[in-house]
Amino acid sequence: MTTTLSLAGKTAIFILKNPVDMLGITILGNNSAIPAYNRNPTAQVLSLQEESYLIDCGEGTQLQMTKYKIRRSKITRIFISHLHGDHYFGLIGLLTSMGLLGRTQDLYLHAPAALEGIINTQLQVADTRLPYPLHFLPLPAEGQVVDDKRITVHCFPVQHRIPCWGFVFAQKKKPRKLVIENVRAAEIPAAFYDNLQKGEDYTTKTGTVIRNTEVTIPSPPPKSYAYCADTIFDTSLAERVKNANLLYHETTYLKDLEERAAARFHSTTIQAGAIAQQARVKRLLIGHFSSKYESLDAFLEETREVFPDTDLALEGVSYML
Amino acid sequence: MTTTLSLAGKTAIFILKNPVDMLGITILGNNSAIPAYNRNPTAQVLSLQEESYLIDCGEGTQLQMTKYKIRRSKITRIFISHLHGDHYFGLIGLLTSMGLLGRTQDLYLHAPAALEGIINTQLQVADTRLPYPLHFLPLPAEGQVVDDKRITVHCFPVQHRIPCWGFVFAQKKKPRKLVIENVRAAEIPAAFYDNLQKGEDYTTKTGTVIRNTEVTIPSPPPKSYAYCADTIFDTSLAERVKNANLLYHETTYLKDLEERAAARFHSTTIQAGAIAQQARVKRLLIGHFSSKYESLDAFLEETREVFPDTDLALEGVSYML
Repeated sequence: MTTTLSLAGKTAIFILKNPVDMLGITILGNNSAIPAYNRNPTAQVLSLQEESYLIDCGEGTQLQMTKYKIRRSKITRIFISHLHGDHYFGLIGLLTSMGLLGRTQDLYLHAPAALEGIINTQLQVADTRLPYPLHFLPLPAEGQVVDDKRITVHCFPVQHRIPCWGFVFAQKKKPRKLVIENVRAAEIPAAFYDNLQKGEDYTTKTGTVIRNTEVTIPSPPPKSYAYCADTIFDTSLAERVKNANLLYHETTYLKDLEERAAARFHSTTIQAGAIAQQARVKRLLIGHFSSKYESLDAFLEETREVFPDTDLALEGVSYML
Repeated sequence: MTTTLSLAGKTAIFILKNPVDMLGITILGNNSAIPAYNRNPTAQVLSLQEESYLIDCGEGTQLQMTKYKIRRSKITRIFISHLHGDHYFGLIGLLTSMGLLGRTQDLYLHAPAALEGIINTQLQVADTRLPYPLHFLPLPAEGQVVDDKRITVHCFPVQHRIPCWGFVFAQKKKPRKLVIENVRAAEIPAAFYDNLQKGEDYTTKTGTVIRNTEVTIPSPPPKSYAYCADTIFDTSLAERVKNANLLYHETTYLKDLEERAAARFHSTTIQAGAIAQQARVKRLLIGHFSSKYESLDAFLEETREVFPDTDLALEGVSYML
């Protein structure tokens, strides 16, 4: 994307790979349990401005990254929701490939504590030392796990057959934007610009108050992506993910298999729709489809009956927030 | 395949899925270390008459099985040569998928001892119990590891960066075939047929000796497949694999990278050819190509200069012995 901005009479052209204020999620796998019908197990890439986060990493994720041109070197953090294989069997291959490709930059791995031993054992038996620092950060029961310059990540427990976590990825509130012509016209000194961006009014030497709203405009509201991993239908999740710009909620089964879904700690289409509605999210993305279904059409139809702004999580497709 | 046999004046038509005396090897992955250029990590399927053996199981092997229509239920034994990830990272996914698909028949896993703990830990953290008996059989330093009705398997050590094994899969010698017209003409009683098939002569009540070669013909000679896994150039391997119908030997590098190959305990094209020549094998199959090569043409050319009966191990292709 090419953006042309006019700044104080000068023209600057920015060529941006991703729009600055946009987060996008790219689906690398949307199937549950067993790969089927060319659908791969769960993996998603959250694209930020200069880096990417990987969310879950089923078998074959590194192959999917090659297929969909996801740059491994941009991934700075990996989040693993739980230790069922369809959510992490591709991780050890990705970690070792990153090493073989010469990665040197830090990688942060947020995952259930038991994964650390599994990875270390597999590296040891192969006599492999990764050439980059791999920081293993066991997930707490719940709370903030990332506080970066532009983004925070919180984890929360979801109810599944084994310990399992969901995540909320949220942009931080951005400072207000200066309307530079007005700022200059008011002769506000540059030293006060930071205060303006925080929303403060300016008082001139003569005592005139220049209201903040006269010289700044609000930045776009921060966006958030909520990922509910594998979960039974649980209305308390709505509070965890409320107002998200995009909610990913699993729909392993169609609505007629509600009992089976509950028995296996999974959800149906209309249950995911109900959570999205209750949480007042803007859009809903559904995935983790059972291998028993070849066509996904009914998933979309059923969920949209409850929550119209629903999309299927389709492999290779990026959904902007 | 349809075979028409004329037996004592009767015509029998046999429709065989696999020819009885034939073993075939199907390549599911032929690349080393990192998947590249649509080449997957090592995995091969040895097709026997009513079952299959899987040899190594890099990441994505279960997907390759689906792609190339390899029936998981036919696999009775899995052999893992060593614990570098490109030879076994697909195993845990395959084992759990077999369980999810309802397998109940026994599965025998011949692998380096350390793999047992890795598998068990991954099953435990997922709270998974396989619905079929998985028999873990740690590889001995060397010797016979399978003695089935029709086939034997021996393992032997190869020199690699970590403990690594090669395998020889050999059909057992078959009993001689009766020429039924001649047997009947000689009035040999049916109770003696087994002895005839073992090669014994028959002496009639009147003392006439009917020589075995008058009433039987030899069965086709037993066939063998030798798999050398990842190995440095090691001429002592020739004795291990001598006279094999088909030898698989790795060629990670072309001949100009002999030093790199040695430093990494791998082999080059002409080194694989030299082993095949010294071992007097019938055919040579080469694979485990480095990700640095996009084209494989030079691998074939260089190896054929030394050993003309060479083929590239190509994904999805079956090589009959």
